[in-house]
Amino acid sequence: MGNMDSSRYKPYPAVDISARSWPDARITSAPAWCSIDLRDGNQALPVPMNVEEKLRMFELLVDTGFKQVEVGFPSASAVEFDFVRTLIEQDLIPEDVTIQVLTQAREHLIRKTFESIRGARKAIVHLYNSTSALQREVVFGKDRHEVKEIAIRGTELVRELAGQHQGGTVYFQYSPESFTGTELDYALDVCSAVMATWGASESNKVILNLPSTVEMSTPNIFADRIEWFCRNLPNRDAAIISVHTHNDRGTAVASAELAVMAGAERVEGALFGNGERCGNLDIITMALNLFTQGVDPELDFSNMAHIADVYTDVTRMPVHPRHPYAGELVFTAFSGSHQDAINKGMQAIEARAGSEWRVPYLPIDPMDVGCSYKAIVRINSQSGKGGIAYVMDKEFGCQVPRWMQPDLGKSVQDVVDNTGRELSPEEIYSVFESSYLKLTRPYALTKCQIRWEDEDPERNDEEATVISALVDTSQGGKEFTARGNGPVDAFVKGLREYVGLEFSVDEYAEHAIGHSADALAIAYVRIDTPDGRSACGSGIDSNISYASIKAVLSACNRL
Amino acid sequence: MGNMDSSRYKPYPAVDISARSWPDARITSAPAWCSIDLRDGNQALPVPMNVEEKLRMFELLVDTGFKQVEVGFPSASAVEFDFVRTLIEQDLIPEDVTIQVLTQAREHLIRKTFESIRGARKAIVHLYNSTSALQREVVFGKDRHEVKEIAIRGTELVRELAGQHQGGTVYFQYSPESFTGTELDYALDVCSAVMATWGASESNKVILNLPSTVEMSTPNIFADRIEWFCRNLPNRDAAIISVHTHNDRGTAVASAELAVMAGAERVEGALFGNGERCGNLDIITMALNLFTQGVDPELDFSNMAHIADVYTDVTRMPVHPRHPYAGELVFTAFSGSHQDAINKGMQAIEARAGSEWRVPYLPIDPMDVGCSYKAIVRINSQSGKGGIAYVMDKEFGCQVPRWMQPDLGKSVQDVVDNTGRELSPEEIYSVFESSYLKLTRPYALTKCQIRWEDEDPERNDEEATVISALVDTSQGGKEFTARGNGPVDAFVKGLREYVGLEFSVDEYAEHAIGHSADALAIAYVRIDTPDGRSACGSGIDSNISYASIKAVLSACNRL
Repeated sequence: MGNMDSSRYKPYPAVDISARSWPDARITSAPAWCSIDLRDGNQALPVPMNVEEKLRMFELLVDTGFKQVEVGFPSASAVEFDFVRTLIEQDLIPEDVTIQVLTQAREHLIRKTFESIRGARKAIVHLYNSTSALQREVVFGKDRHEVKEIAIRGTELVRELAGQHQGGTVYFQYSPESFTGTELDYALDVCSAVMATWGASESNKVILNLPSTVEMSTPNIFADRIEWFCRNLPNRDAAIISVHTHNDRGTAVASAELAVMAGAERVEGALFGNGERCGNLDIITMALNLFTQGVDPELDFSNMAHIADVYTDVTRMPVHPRHPYAGELVFTAFSGSHQDAINKGMQAIEARAGSEWRVPYLPIDPMDVGCSYKAIVRINSQSGKGGIAYVMDKEFGCQVPRWMQPDLGKSVQDVVDNTGRELSPEEIYSVFESSYLKLTRPYALTKCQIRWEDEDPERNDEEATVISALVDTSQGGKEFTARGNGPVDAFVKGLREYVGLEFSVDEYAEHAIGHSADALAIAYVRIDTPDGRSACGSGIDSNISYASIKAVLSACNRL
Repeated sequence: MGNMDSSRYKPYPAVDISARSWPDARITSAPAWCSIDLRDGNQALPVPMNVEEKLRMFELLVDTGFKQVEVGFPSASAVEFDFVRTLIEQDLIPEDVTIQVLTQAREHLIRKTFESIRGARKAIVHLYNSTSALQREVVFGKDRHEVKEIAIRGTELVRELAGQHQGGTVYFQYSPESFTGTELDYALDVCSAVMATWGASESNKVILNLPSTVEMSTPNIFADRIEWFCRNLPNRDAAIISVHTHNDRGTAVASAELAVMAGAERVEGALFGNGERCGNLDIITMALNLFTQGVDPELDFSNMAHIADVYTDVTRMPVHPRHPYAGELVFTAFSGSHQDAINKGMQAIEARAGSEWRVPYLPIDPMDVGCSYKAIVRINSQSGKGGIAYVMDKEFGCQVPRWMQPDLGKSVQDVVDNTGRELSPEEIYSVFESSYLKLTRPYALTKCQIRWEDEDPERNDEEATVISALVDTSQGGKEFTARGNGPVDAFVKGLREYVGLEFSVDEYAEHAIGHSADALAIAYVRIDTPDGRSACGSGIDSNISYASIKAVLSACNRL
């Protein structure tokens, strides 16, 4: 269509694999995570981090629980080299954390890389060269054999220099860069040769990192490639299979998940999926996906706001409001039916013994990532009574009864339809106030006194409450004294007899707002008239009896 | 770890399915797309669209090629109702576009919905009720039978009112809302009952839309559910199976893709994945994923910038800079090796006959979505010579020769390491100018004249070029006349004899900048000294001879 011609593109090749096992697999423990925030993530920033910012990021990653952190490409620029030296010389790397440094398979770069890690206790030297068919052809002008030789020569040099490393251990990682653009059999051939050159064994494993440098297929095909690779790799137990997915097709998370199901044991990624072009795997999302399936991710995101703050500070990249588990809108429900269901689900959790998290529309307890529940429900023109009731309850402690919610919902809806934008909790309360609490027309209570006056204590009079009230009306003030079995009953009778209002109270509820001794009380009523009309009302007062009377008059005003 | 307790979560149940076929399937044609931008997308906005904004969005969707557009939930608010009426009454719906309206399975809402579509030529009435186990329990307090009855009663009423619809056709869609939280056999039971109630047949199909209202599992399990459902649905040919994926686990695209492989024929989603919480399927990404596999998506995104502009205007939501196919950074390479490979890949495309798109690190031709190539390469501290050469070529028409690129690269790198941020093309050119073109110390050319002067025409003298020059040096001006087989040769000999500079020219290149008759010429040289030093230089002049001489002096100044 338009200017777009799909015939210029060829489909990605399928993998010839029988009886694949990954679709039946489950992930039951976290993979080994490696953060690449300081490398791929940093490389892709219009303004890369300076040393101070890199240190903040490194500290954040360590605090979050990463045990492997790729800290740079030290042979590529002075800033990267200096940062690695700073980490080592200032002893900033915890005992249980291994740093990783990236280098192309070229002699002077490898040598420079080893200079950068002088004195490191534990470091992974990560060697790569591009093996893809396209890059062999247009970038290097080399054939399969020549490109494999680059990897082997590089491995030999890393092995030699690793043997000379003092004061710690050098581990080895190899990436056939552009793996997704590389013929599968050839990638296997190169990786096997690298393993053999290294002398890999179960006690001296090589990390083989298979990157979807460019994401080129649906995630199931990537998983097929990983399963095929794991099946066919000689000396499989001498390798740790790692994946490094990119997000060009918006499926980096799925690709990494399915790859782990297919046999990968290690995953590289970045916070919020930062990385070149469309980014890398978002480790936060994948880790919390595991978490919500009952798997300990071995990373701590319980203070997501802090993580997002540091991240946005040092990378200058935004976190999208819909970013899974972290965006400002992801625990928000605007839809009325969603709000209602969340409201009821939360009540059910409170009522239930046991802590299992089951709430409609919320796949994770927001508290698990340090979010309060307050943000969950927000009111716009798409919202309904359930959400409004939730906000009234959580923000203002007013538990609007179910029979009154449609009435309040309509009052709020009218305002939202007019303003056309989201209402804040304060604005919702203000609608509640102006629609119920502050009505003075046609009726306003000017004076009121309630007393208990049993006319005949022996028969224990049921109509012992006496109310004296002055009610302003459009026809002037009406003063009356009436008797009933409670203040509401007495007041209703008085209104009927002296003001001429004919109605009965259909529903009634009240509760204290808050828990202190001087808490206010709120009352809600619904009244019916003989001619079939009805109205809700509400009143607030420090005295529950007055709150009830105000609620009745509020309903009369709304008739 | 931390405050996070994964034991509060249970794993999502697997599907009991044998010999699943979807992992071997390929998508070879586009599914039927339905935009839900005006419904799910709008519902989830802090500031929902007003009628004017909805009209802009509707027009955009139609222009993009959508044939099915869910335009609202007309029974939920006055704005939504009015918008549907506006579309119909002002005849704004093209002949080949079907509008869709959402309604809960409740009598007064269904009736109101039908009021809203009065006179519509083609409308899908989309009925839903939540069928999930959790919502049956905590929201509705109803059992399986009772919840199924809600769907059946709703279907009966839709059928009745559809029969009364005048002036067009009403199609029927049913969603077992919260399908991902619904037991698979029960979802099948409800949907089968709905189909039977509707009287579905091959010529009167029901759209059964299976939403991952909350994304709850890896996408392969969602695909298993769709394949199981398709296999077990009685009267399968009387249904169009639709999916509607959400992005709570960051895998909405993968889930929709795998679901289509598993049998779904229709896909609901929104531009840029807008929708409640973490959003809906991003139709742009899924459509362009198909496109880059050679499948016509039947949607036109060739003017992505316009689409993004309208979208951000009316939704007030941002497009993330890494959003696949659309973000401002997704066609940008900062890494030196990536820039170099893109540079070579683009050259290879230009050189090659045929139009197949194969460029490293760029899964789609940016021109296909209306992006220029200019944005592809941007220079920061992570960049290398290849990227700089690319910018010099594409932005300024200077084809820096390969042998000079490392030298220029180093000059730029020094500046970037100091500034710590991205350099604009202009800043890169300014480094080139100050490092090569504008050097005047220790040597500056003050006067220069070149003439052709054959001393002995009969032997056709090979040293017929004579140069007279005045060169300022730190020891004062040196004036000389020298002879050679060309201007560069003569100038070099003059510098050697009269200024005492001992070097030879190792590499030389020149070209015109631009194509006009009065184009400037640029020359590049590399010189070697007998003691093993070398330097590059460059000069620009309207006269190619002077450009060459300036280049030589530039190199001398850099020694």
